[in-house]
Amino acid sequence: MKVLGINGSLRRDSLNLKLLKAAGDYFSENVEFEILSLGDIPLYNQDLDGDNKPAAVVNLKQKISDADALVFATPEFNHSIPGALQNAIDWASRPAFNSPLTGKATGMLSASMSPIGGARAQAQLHTVMASALAPIFPSIEYLLGSAHTVFDASGAMTDETAATRLERYIKGFEEWLQQGG
Amino acid sequence: MKVLGINGSLRRDSLNLKLLKAAGDYFSENVEFEILSLGDIPLYNQDLDGDNKPAAVVNLKQKISDADALVFATPEFNHSIPGALQNAIDWASRPAFNSPLTGKATGMLSASMSPIGGARAQAQLHTVMASALAPIFPSIEYLLGSAHTVFDASGAMTDETAATRLERYIKGFEEWLQQGG
Amino acid sequence: MKVLGINGSLRRDSLNLKLLKAAGDYFSENVEFEILSLGDIPLYNQDLDGDNKPAAVVNLKQKISDADALVFATPEFNHSIPGALQNAIDWASRPAFNSPLTGKATGMLSASMSPIGGARAQAQLHTVMASALAPIFPSIEYLLGSAHTVFDASGAMTDETAATRLERYIKGFEEWLQQGG
Amino acid sequence: MKVLGINGSLRRDSLNLKLLKAAGDYFSENVEFEILSLGDIPLYNQDLDGDNKPAAVVNLKQKISDADALVFATPEFNHSIPGALQNAIDWASRPAFNSPLTGKATGMLSASMSPIGGARAQAQLHTVMASALAPIFPSIEYLLGSAHTVFDASGAMTDETAATRLERYIKGFEEWLQQGG
Repeated sequence: MKVLGINGSLRRDSLNLKLLKAAGDYFSENVEFEILSLGDIPLYNQDLDGDNKPAAVVNLKQKISDADALVFATPEFNHSIPGALQNAIDWASRPAFNSPLTGKATGMLSASMSPIGGARAQAQLHTVMASALAPIFPSIEYLLGSAHTVFDASGAMTDETAATRLERYIKGFEEWLQQGG
Repeated sequence: MKVLGINGSLRRDSLNLKLLKAAGDYFSENVEFEILSLGDIPLYNQDLDGDNKPAAVVNLKQKISDADALVFATPEFNHSIPGALQNAIDWASRPAFNSPLTGKATGMLSASMSPIGGARAQAQLHTVMASALAPIFPSIEYLLGSAHTVFDASGAMTDETAATRLERYIKGFEEWLQQGG
Repeated sequence: MKVLGINGSLRRDSLNLKLLKAAGDYFSENVEFEILSLGDIPLYNQDLDGDNKPAAVVNLKQKISDADALVFATPEFNHSIPGALQNAIDWASRPAFNSPLTGKATGMLSASMSPIGGARAQAQLHTVMASALAPIFPSIEYLLGSAHTVFDASGAMTDETAATRLERYIKGFEEWLQQGG
Repeated sequence: MKVLGINGSLRRDSLNLKLLKAAGDYFSENVEFEILSLGDIPLYNQDLDGDNKPAAVVNLKQKISDADALVFATPEFNHSIPGALQNAIDWASRPAFNSPLTGKATGMLSASMSPIGGARAQAQLHTVMASALAPIFPSIEYLLGSAHTVFDASGAMTDETAATRLERYIKGFEEWLQQGG
């Protein structure tokens, strides 16, 4: 089973990238987990969305098609998801009747330095992915507040509570996938 | 008084661009109205948000600073605003304590081919701009559904009901600006 | 299979009640469909949410427990769902770890006199039910705008387009339920 | 100047009631501050919204009319505002063209036991009040997480950071009101 991790943040030292890597470690050996960066994707423009799509868009759609499921990790920007993440979904969701997002089982995580942990970002991502007809793992959400305090210098998640909750989310997600998503 | 129109769509024949142009015609002669495209702005990356910001971002922030007010026009993508629009706001809203969006009087319009007219996009734009501490014109929203049927080939708004509603929104907005926004 | 229809509107001539009744006719004979009114449920107060809950609340929770799936129909109030509907979900969602809403397969419809058809209400209901851990039918949403024009005096849905779309939604929903929801 | 505090929670030991009381102490002597409970208001039903409205509704609308501004304090229920609060706004917002909420300057606070502090509730309240055409204080939001730890047995706010932030919000709000809201 292939799971594609999608990081809503583009910065090099992204906390959400660390979170995705930590999440990847909790999948069983039956899961092949790959993380995708969104940095190369141009802004969506319908005039470019024809037969010759930008290469990064072709790659995005192919990676999503090839995956059995998606796991997003996202920061919160302006009480919403980053434009970069919305933009990737804008590309992938078209055309509506032949989108690789349709029916794609989806999980979501969020990390932020504030105590809120990206709660509003995740609610908005829920709205956006539901609009793309993706079934979303029905679970208590995984919000990682004060995220800059839970990883060590090597990027390992050293906060036990955060790690235990993450393990529970990912194991629950994999179980849900096995039951059909 | 300077008002900056910001178009959430990037395509050449954008209905929201036509809507912004039609809106511009309803301001009084006291208003200088300019429309900004978001096509050149790179995806937000905190690593790039230092002393040497990308030129398109410097321009975006300067245009917003120079304006007395903003009017957005946006399509609806995936029950939300386009990533390109969110992305521009992500850049302009930082740093939080010195953002040109803070306190900037804001109006909003939306156009779509569906009968919904971008209602969800506009609600989300409200949330995002409120987070950026922009006061938003308290008004019945201007939603333009079936927008492909209201302009003629030259781009003029030929639907009388749509035009009358637009005139009312823009005149009300200008009056609100004159009272301090 | 039992499906419980829940009407977000309390008025006697509710368009959403007509919509629910029309929806009920499209289920197969394998489905027992019942419609619940929320008119008797008191405002949620944690002080009343103990061993002796109000009778209307006990009934609400029992009806949800007994059902295999829920179908909501709701108007839009103030860009959201009616307080009466939120209130019923507030009761039913508690306690979080023993709520009849957890895992309950859910569909949703909305009707309004405006062309928007309750789009924002339905998006908000999605958010609220996802928070209650209910899996939601991943489908193009059923929005019924100008709803006062599609029923005849007897309450029958006489608009063919609206009826065909409703049939498709309900048949798709039942198929999804048969596959496990 | 009269400010009406509206509590989204109905329970006797409401943390949001304590928060409203603490907020009231930070207004200057020019402000008369009163707190309204929503416990008596029936569920909105258009059939009851005629010439003889329920007494609690008449009272609600009169109190809002008499006030120069509103301050809400709300818990978060199911990623949204409590049904009781939405319900009160549903009553007060009608009829749309003669609602006491139109143009009423509005502030908002939220308290919860979780670290999130009602962030999603407050975002939703923003959406709902904007739909009612109320101008909302453009401010960094006041979210009170872990709210059960910041009051002493007498209900006084003993957490200094929480109190300082509250003072700043209320003083900023009063200044905004003096400038016209």
